[in-house]
Amino acid sequence: MKKEVTKTTGKAANKPKIKIIPLGGLEEIGMNITAFEYEDSIVVVDCGLAFPDEDMLGIDLVIPDVTYLKDNIDKVKGFVITHGHEDHIGAIPYVLKDINVPLYATKLTLGIIEGKLKEHNMLRTVKRKVVKYGQSVNLGCFRVEFIRTNHSIADAAALAIFSPAGVIVHTGDFKIDYTPVWGDPIDLTRFGELGKKGVLALMCDSTNVLRQGFTMSERTVGKTFDHIFAENIRRRIIVATFASNVDRVQQIIDTAYKYDRKVVIEGRSMINVISTASDLGYIKIPDNTVIDIENLKNYPDEKVVVITTGSQGESMAALSRMAASIHRKVTIGPEDTVVLSSTPIPGNEKSVSRVINELERKGAKVIFQDTHVSGHACQEDIKLIYSLVKPKYSIPVHGEYRHLKAQAQLAIDMGVEKENAIVLSSGDVLEIGEDSAKVVDKVQSGEILVDGLGVGDVGNIVLRDRQNLAENGIIIVVMTLEKYTNQLLAGPDIVTRGFVYVRESENLIEEAKQVVTDSVLDCIDRKVSDWGKIKLEVKDTLSEYLWKKMKRNPMILPIIMEVE
Amino acid sequence: MKKEVTKTTGKAANKPKIKIIPLGGLEEIGMNITAFEYEDSIVVVDCGLAFPDEDMLGIDLVIPDVTYLKDNIDKVKGFVITHGHEDHIGAIPYVLKDINVPLYATKLTLGIIEGKLKEHNMLRTVKRKVVKYGQSVNLGCFRVEFIRTNHSIADAAALAIFSPAGVIVHTGDFKIDYTPVWGDPIDLTRFGELGKKGVLALMCDSTNVLRQGFTMSERTVGKTFDHIFAENIRRRIIVATFASNVDRVQQIIDTAYKYDRKVVIEGRSMINVISTASDLGYIKIPDNTVIDIENLKNYPDEKVVVITTGSQGESMAALSRMAASIHRKVTIGPEDTVVLSSTPIPGNEKSVSRVINELERKGAKVIFQDTHVSGHACQEDIKLIYSLVKPKYSIPVHGEYRHLKAQAQLAIDMGVEKENAIVLSSGDVLEIGEDSAKVVDKVQSGEILVDGLGVGDVGNIVLRDRQNLAENGIIIVVMTLEKYTNQLLAGPDIVTRGFVYVRESENLIEEAKQVVTDSVLDCIDRKVSDWGKIKLEVKDTLSEYLWKKMKRNPMILPIIMEVE
Repeated sequence: MKKEVTKTTGKAANKPKIKIIPLGGLEEIGMNITAFEYEDSIVVVDCGLAFPDEDMLGIDLVIPDVTYLKDNIDKVKGFVITHGHEDHIGAIPYVLKDINVPLYATKLTLGIIEGKLKEHNMLRTVKRKVVKYGQSVNLGCFRVEFIRTNHSIADAAALAIFSPAGVIVHTGDFKIDYTPVWGDPIDLTRFGELGKKGVLALMCDSTNVLRQGFTMSERTVGKTFDHIFAENIRRRIIVATFASNVDRVQQIIDTAYKYDRKVVIEGRSMINVISTASDLGYIKIPDNTVIDIENLKNYPDEKVVVITTGSQGESMAALSRMAASIHRKVTIGPEDTVVLSSTPIPGNEKSVSRVINELERKGAKVIFQDTHVSGHACQEDIKLIYSLVKPKYSIPVHGEYRHLKAQAQLAIDMGVEKENAIVLSSGDVLEIGEDSAKVVDKVQSGEILVDGLGVGDVGNIVLRDRQNLAENGIIIVVMTLEKYTNQLLAGPDIVTRGFVYVRESENLIEEAKQVVTDSVLDCIDRKVSDWGKIKLEVKDTLSEYLWKKMKRNPMILPIIMEVE
Repeated sequence: MKKEVTKTTGKAANKPKIKIIPLGGLEEIGMNITAFEYEDSIVVVDCGLAFPDEDMLGIDLVIPDVTYLKDNIDKVKGFVITHGHEDHIGAIPYVLKDINVPLYATKLTLGIIEGKLKEHNMLRTVKRKVVKYGQSVNLGCFRVEFIRTNHSIADAAALAIFSPAGVIVHTGDFKIDYTPVWGDPIDLTRFGELGKKGVLALMCDSTNVLRQGFTMSERTVGKTFDHIFAENIRRRIIVATFASNVDRVQQIIDTAYKYDRKVVIEGRSMINVISTASDLGYIKIPDNTVIDIENLKNYPDEKVVVITTGSQGESMAALSRMAASIHRKVTIGPEDTVVLSSTPIPGNEKSVSRVINELERKGAKVIFQDTHVSGHACQEDIKLIYSLVKPKYSIPVHGEYRHLKAQAQLAIDMGVEKENAIVLSSGDVLEIGEDSAKVVDKVQSGEILVDGLGVGDVGNIVLRDRQNLAENGIIIVVMTLEKYTNQLLAGPDIVTRGFVYVRESENLIEEAKQVVTDSVLDCIDRKVSDWGKIKLEVKDTLSEYLWKKMKRNPMILPIIMEVE
């Protein structure tokens, strides 16, 4: 530790203040990224992506707008990453292209990040360092200590951020698991020690704050698997779960081994994560247990388990392909028991139902009850953390507004003063110290849309056009006019896409063509020479006609070609 | 009763068989319509619509394909309707345009249907008759008796369909409510009497078959309202619920009256249903309790309740407009308590969350727990019906495949023989009698899409185009060629919509134009005279360029104009 941090207690006025700037992650789940700033130092916690909302048509993924970091690039000392989920690491390859500073994370987290860097050819350009639980990294005026937690992915860390203004505890995503499948329970003692010394602010996971009680141990799912295997002894078993839930996969493998079944791992992201976890020692696979999917046909149904992606009904994932009979290696039938080991994430309910219906139609037995526990702390777990950390300020993170608001209320119930429970929005600049905490500024933040290789070239105008095209289709009116004379040389022709089935609507299209032709000839008669005006008249006339005729509002695009 | 129906017991072989033909409603919730046929008689139960799936872009609603009924129009004696929900009555105005036969329903159900007929100017052309519980209607070879049930709308009926092949009991959508808000509990005795005499088949609601236990009485929600009103005595209360849940509205009004508050009814469908229910005596509104929304401003917050639509987060409904600050009369603030009195229907979870977040951001308190009970029977309720009706055959209705399948299993557990628990698909023709039940044919069935005034003019090709346009946008390549010589007179020009933000992608568009121009000139050089071929080359070349450059796949539409 090079720089001594200021103590967090004392009475002198004008105590040091740091800035906390969430650049994403507070409006919706996803895109977690928060900057901590003091004088010439900025430390960034996490760098996640979000998956597109249904109204972001054609968008592949969403990354945070890090203009603020780019504008202050000289200050940025590094990124500290809490765990290896997409909403915390997914934007790293995009953001580090512009802001190439070192990365700090635990071993498995970094292993997963390295997979991403490799895909983007960035393995050699990005500096990175493994940090163990209990270790700290010095980053400018900050020191960041990694604290062991539990989550639905191994090697998750909370962070104690020692700053000139005091200690900030950031939980990352966490649960309290007294009997974790891998490693040890969350280091509650360290939370307590920090609390005893004095913590300025707690930034705690809000995901499950609306759920009462405690979150169950991951091991309870292992027991369910044991029951399922015992009851389906003559059937093939297929388990779908989150690719990143290494402990879940470990338990399925352990159960398979106990019941003398071979294991097939299927689905690209599942294979990637499990091989990383296996290389780094985070999963223990007994010899001769995992077989290649090519060898599946050599074993009877009751001797295999397929572990696969697609538990959320994602249309391109392996389970959906099996359900739709387009998977190359696995054909679903009445001898299959399919276990969905996850709960639908809000928005995925219908896709999950669709997959279940398809599987059952093929005769499979589908099990989805008691096969999942959450990776996030519930109300009573969160209270436990507050009771240990005893922060002066509460700054809830990781949730929709209603979750943040609910945690703020919980913090108040736990003794935080009302004005010290602070719900931030992305882009808020919170200036915080022993004396006060106040939002003093708002910096640029928001969503950058990624579509194919294009980053940021699809914005609101394009999305609005896509929405309009999606709902109403497009009518293109094209004609050729003679330069100077404005004589109509060809057209107007009408081409439609996504509007009506033309073969069955020939009369309508013919009528529309007549309406447009009349409108153009009328313009020419009136010697309208401004093509913008002609286009506008065509558009208005046709639009009015179609609305009257069929109460529809397609995009109308008049194009005039000019020939000398 | 003109025609005597055949008894359902006896030993002679070749007993009469009827056909049961579900024309919709079995794959997804919605579009319930089932034909019962014997010789020259067809009776149709219900005539519902479905709301479009997210992949039915731009579609307003979905109605069943009734080609089979049109082809057999002379046999169709009438429609009997179980209750007034959209998924059971919504297609009536569309279907009865082609098949104008009499409608039979209970009073409130018919009142709601008449509202629809009025909108479609069909009040004078459609014959209809109110049927009371316990009454029967004779329709050709069938007699249909209406039996009292409970549901989330008043006046719901089950049907006993007396046919030459035996009695079919169709539950409609139902719950068992021993303490209903309006009217009496379900007529369990009648179910028992029918069962005692012998029932050929039970067609029972499957919606909640996966839920254990019993469905709670509607009155339990009334108690919750009382608590909420008592705890929010100084605040304005806004309750959002389903427009058609008249009993729910009754309970809110009763609670408002008790706590001396005036009631505002808001939202078009809510106003429609409540005024129909009020006219017909299905809701009792104390004098001077309901006030016009225009007078809301004349009362203090703690003296009013607003009952509104939008509990499912529907973007155009009143609550969503309030949450988005675009409602003309109601502005949400920290003095508001908003009660969402419904559970999100699968697929609506995210919209509901969005509305809650918006309301909480405006400072409102949002309550959504224990404020709703289902209108559908749970597992144990369904078992009760089976134990009374004791059907020979079970034909589950109203559910996704997995629900139908689960009810078939429940029926087997309740003593129905395994081969007599029959899961049908839409279009199946089930020939059923005392001797046997078998699917003997498949008739045309399916979804007809309604977009604006267009019924059926949007099909799969148009939807596929819309999907493609939605995800990738469109590039139009337009050029003018001289007839005979094929000389390029103008263009090629490129116009895009929903592809990229052109101003920031000028270089890309310029390059694309060059690529296209080269390709066209190359065609001309090679004296390619088939315009189809020129278009194809333009399309392929541009498509390849864009995929390489940006991994995107927009719709490419080459248009060639011809000038002499």
